[in-house]
Amino acid sequence: MPVVDVHTHMYPPAYMELLRNRTSVPYVKSFPDDPSAGNRLVILPAEDTESTSRGRPIGPEYFEVSEKLEFMRRHGIDISIISLANPWLDWLPSDTAAETARQVNDDVERMCTDNEGKLFAFGTLPLSAPVKEVIEEVERLAGLPHHRGIVMGTSGLGSGLDDPALDPIYATMEKHEQLVFLHPHYGLPTSAYGERASDYGHVLPLALGFPLETTIAVTRMLLSGVFDRFPRLNVLLAHSGGTLPFLAGRIESCIAHDAHLKKLGKLEGRRDVWDVLKNNIYLDAVIYSEVGLKAAIDASGVGRLMFGTDHPFFPPLDEGETEWLSVKMNSKAVESALGYDRKADAVMGGNACRILRLPS
Amino acid sequence: MPVVDVHTHMYPPAYMELLRNRTSVPYVKSFPDDPSAGNRLVILPAEDTESTSRGRPIGPEYFEVSEKLEFMRRHGIDISIISLANPWLDWLPSDTAAETARQVNDDVERMCTDNEGKLFAFGTLPLSAPVKEVIEEVERLAGLPHHRGIVMGTSGLGSGLDDPALDPIYATMEKHEQLVFLHPHYGLPTSAYGERASDYGHVLPLALGFPLETTIAVTRMLLSGVFDRFPRLNVLLAHSGGTLPFLAGRIESCIAHDAHLKKLGKLEGRRDVWDVLKNNIYLDAVIYSEVGLKAAIDASGVGRLMFGTDHPFFPPLDEGETEWLSVKMNSKAVESALGYDRKADAVMGGNACRILRLPS
Repeated sequence: MPVVDVHTHMYPPAYMELLRNRTSVPYVKSFPDDPSAGNRLVILPAEDTESTSRGRPIGPEYFEVSEKLEFMRRHGIDISIISLANPWLDWLPSDTAAETARQVNDDVERMCTDNEGKLFAFGTLPLSAPVKEVIEEVERLAGLPHHRGIVMGTSGLGSGLDDPALDPIYATMEKHEQLVFLHPHYGLPTSAYGERASDYGHVLPLALGFPLETTIAVTRMLLSGVFDRFPRLNVLLAHSGGTLPFLAGRIESCIAHDAHLKKLGKLEGRRDVWDVLKNNIYLDAVIYSEVGLKAAIDASGVGRLMFGTDHPFFPPLDEGETEWLSVKMNSKAVESALGYDRKADAVMGGNACRILRLPS
Repeated sequence: MPVVDVHTHMYPPAYMELLRNRTSVPYVKSFPDDPSAGNRLVILPAEDTESTSRGRPIGPEYFEVSEKLEFMRRHGIDISIISLANPWLDWLPSDTAAETARQVNDDVERMCTDNEGKLFAFGTLPLSAPVKEVIEEVERLAGLPHHRGIVMGTSGLGSGLDDPALDPIYATMEKHEQLVFLHPHYGLPTSAYGERASDYGHVLPLALGFPLETTIAVTRMLLSGVFDRFPRLNVLLAHSGGTLPFLAGRIESCIAHDAHLKKLGKLEGRRDVWDVLKNNIYLDAVIYSEVGLKAAIDASGVGRLMFGTDHPFFPPLDEGETEWLSVKMNSKAVESALGYDRKADAVMGGNACRILRLPS
């Protein structure tokens, strides 16, 4: 059974060129006067400071296929489903967004073709383009031989995934069986972390803001009836659902006890969060602990979990380490939760082969 | 083995009088011209509208001991550890805060004495008073015969629980073995929920904002070294830790991969989140699902979980229901996760008897 990484990012050449030519978020900054500073990737307004340590270092691991393949070799990964990292194409001008998305997706498709059997991809939508053009790209992606779904942030057309204007897009995704890989980026307002947040590096926004953003987004989809209107829409949630498996009971309880929803008649005939977890939602296994992984399995079923690494993010802090701690934490969680039997194989790759129609 | 409810709120007479005499948050509003509107409890700025449906209805279940006892009888609860509900005394003027806190705590102590063996309490601190007076109240509470710890929100002295100015208070709590019951109130900035949040009643702030507030607060305590400086400080986290059990792995990973923390030398010799979960943290069992409860048990150990109800919040929506769905969801979760054996008894009451020194 192959090992499949469903959560692994790459910037194709067309996207890197866009970032290098920009001077506001998101962009890649070089420092010709200080070569030791290297290139920096700045993707969040809060990290766009005037320092040479703004953002994070960006090296070939973000854009060179050879680096991805070497990472896969070192960690025993047979197939990677690559996706553009945040903030994707959310920020493109409306009139050129569709054309840019086609170029980026074609670039990625080419990478996959050049590495037949090793690389597949989630495509990216031009969400700032007119809805008609977004739908056309969903349809086009469904026909690309190495594409297996679509990566999306939580902003949708600008006001979240509970926006009714997304319905025709969801309808097209459902019709063409295009899985949505839902991934956080925008986090929470920084005031949520208090005045000492910067003392703690990136821990609070990354460890807590990201998973909560995902949880809020999918809960808004649920509350707005997306899964009632599109009962066959499939969503893969990053980071094992953010916090959805753990909070599902509380979400259900808060819905069942909400006088406003009852008054609106929204409590009758609705699909509950457990139903959606077991029938619409897939979860990656990027949760870094046996405790979390078991909860994810309990919530959605072992057949809906898929291994991931989040490469190239979270590299080892000590140079020279060839095996990544972040990867080890996730594969060890699978081992501890499931041992070495068929269920572990399923999470490490079997489920992905079946769900994403991969060669096995 | 008695059934013990560690998460159950009451407003004593002295506190009700304060709320009734106020006209800004927090306050109790009556509508003499419209008796059908009843009294409303307004505790959050966002719910302080001009409508008669501002806040939530407040009836005798909030302040009458007889109602608490009747609720306990109906649900087979033998002992309740009552605590003031949010927003506690966080908002008192500095110069009268200490005196008010003494009155409120003495009121609660009296309730417990009048119902010997059935009611115990977590006290409340005058956090807006000078630190010296806060410390004096911690010491005084340690001597009250029915008090078993202190309920606290996440704001501390105004800037969170990672504020170094709290150290002498933590030191006193540690010295007198005063458990801190950490409870959310302030939630997240409302912009986190998007523009359609009010369509979903109170679901997003209650189901997601509350647990994340708790998680951020305790993670800030961890990151600022509170548990390194006060290794015997005990904290009971509301709602099974918010999301801490599920996210502990991700928090650990984000810390271990943070270049800023490494540069500061903060990665060496630190106590990790799992260590703190198993040695400093207790969790209530207010999580409304078997999935969540199992994760909480996996994270901190079955000996550290304690049943709770969150009464009088989350009453049944249908009048006439005598058994509360919110309570049933939590007791059923214990049953499903642990069956009917000694471990279930421990969570339902045995652990609380041991940890809170109750008659059993």
